[in-house]
Amino acid sequence: MNLYDLSGSGPESEKFDPLLSTDQFRIERIISHAHATPEGEWYDQAWDEWVIVISGSAGLRTANPDQEFTLNAGDSYCFPAHQRHRVEWTDSDQPTIWLAVHYNEPKEAES
Amino acid sequence: MNLYDLSGSGPESEKFDPLLSTDQFRIERIISHAHATPEGEWYDQAWDEWVIVISGSAGLRTANPDQEFTLNAGDSYCFPAHQRHRVEWTDSDQPTIWLAVHYNEPKEAES
Repeated sequence: MNLYDLSGSGPESEKFDPLLSTDQFRIERIISHAHATPEGEWYDQAWDEWVIVISGSAGLRTANPDQEFTLNAGDSYCFPAHQRHRVEWTDSDQPTIWLAVHYNEPKEAES
Repeated sequence: MNLYDLSGSGPESEKFDPLLSTDQFRIERIISHAHATPEGEWYDQAWDEWVIVISGSAGLRTANPDQEFTLNAGDSYCFPAHQRHRVEWTDSDQPTIWLAVHYNEPKEAES
């Protein structure tokens, strides 16, 4: 799958595609068309997530600490596990293409 | 560091910048200005490497099996450990920006 292939994406919902998955981490592509996290909802993940905006732009908000900031094309950010966050907005003039890396996922207790 | 910030890069050598490093994997940005792997040299790595071309283009060659192929912007490829490979050429009209993910690095034997 080519990173810039937008087929199958559209305004109805964000599109998530796995690019590389191992036991230790996974990389996915996200395409947003002016999407935002639904009002009042937050992501609260048990693992770390690093994101980079390849094209487009996005407004992010974190709850702990409470801060709002913009990622333009080429900017990246790391959400440590349990940093509550939401996407306030994404570009309304063009698709926003992200890469997200999920890692340090808690393992099942070994028996 | 912004992914598209070319400062410090140039024709004299490829530029490698770490973006994210953990015990399990590391992601680096590479900027190539028409660079190629020196004649007759091959990479032979003990770990897996996944690369994606963000902008520009590159010609890759592998020895086992012997194949040559092009990565255009948005294309990716995974070199499994010990797949010998080289970069035959990169774009001469524009910088080539890559992301490379190094993973499954052999660990030191635990004592």
